Amino acid sequence: MSALRKPMHLLDETARPEWIDYNGHLYDGYYGVVFARAIDAFIERIGLTAAVREATRHTVYTLETHTRFLREVRLGAPLAVACQVLEADGKRVRVFLTMRDTGRDILAATSEQLLMSIDQGGEMPKAAPWLPESGAVVAALAAKHAHLPAPEGAGRSIAIRR
Amino acid sequence: MSALRKPMHLLDETARPEWIDYNGHLYDGYYGVVFARAIDAFIERIGLTAAVREATRHTVYTLETHTRFLREVRLGAPLAVACQVLEADGKRVRVFLTMRDTGRDILAATSEQLLMSIDQGGEMPKAAPWLPESGAVVAALAAKHAHLPAPEGAGRSIAIRR
Repeated sequence: MSALRKPMHLLDETARPEWIDYNGHLYDGYYGVVFARAIDAFIERIGLTAAVREATRHTVYTLETHTRFLREVRLGAPLAVACQVLEADGKRVRVFLTMRDTGRDILAATSEQLLMSIDQGGEMPKAAPWLPESGAVVAALAAKHAHLPAPEGAGRSIAIRR
Repeated sequence: MSALRKPMHLLDETARPEWIDYNGHLYDGYYGVVFARAIDAFIERIGLTAAVREATRHTVYTLETHTRFLREVRLGAPLAVACQVLEADGKRVRVFLTMRDTGRDILAATSEQLLMSIDQGGEMPKAAPWLPESGAVVAALAAKHAHLPAPEGAGRSIAIRR
């Protein structure tokens, strides 16, 4: 598999003291903050930098997330978030994020997320087609990542499985 | 419907300044923190107070969450989280949380979550049956909430629906 066909690295982070809970590990709420920061990086990567967002009033909202907490993460652990695009259309993209603890080389969590292109220029924010530049990047990523294997756990709902 | 058969109120919170993002609303990562605090309240409600957790080494881990971001939440908005138990067994419980902005009387987000009873007393934390008192409360809640209508959106996976 070529380097181009690996999931895209988005974020390096560290498990911060203020994110540790009474169980002595990363509080589950803060996994979501780390994943959301990775999405911020994704948004920049598709060309929606702060300057572009300001000039065009276009941004991205997260509609849904499905996060699986696979391993505990301890204070100070180095974390890396990567992204595989699962599908996309003219205004939406569904991604699969992995959070690895690179110190212990383990998969700590995954988060499947549905994102929507939003135009904030009107009275109310509303769904809108991707800006052409962003749409081109999203489509290129979707085409490239279509060659990757489907991630384990993607597309699943939550249930007590017996 | 009797008051006993309504979803259980768990948490009152306020959208704090440090949780507001560049879009001018509650950053999606922090919805997860609010929901996680509601789960802390749930854990206390089923008898796993800090003192009991300390004495028994039993706690609860969140295995999975599926969160839907339905409406923007603005700085200072009063938030209320309620909980409906969807199903339970001897060591797990699946709940459906709603976050309402009570100032505007809107449903801001929902989060379906799968929780697992954990024994931290050994070398490694491991799944373990509920402590008897907690198991009794979980079973009673599941029986009571079985009379409620299934929440819209529960049991769903994430997809781009065309």
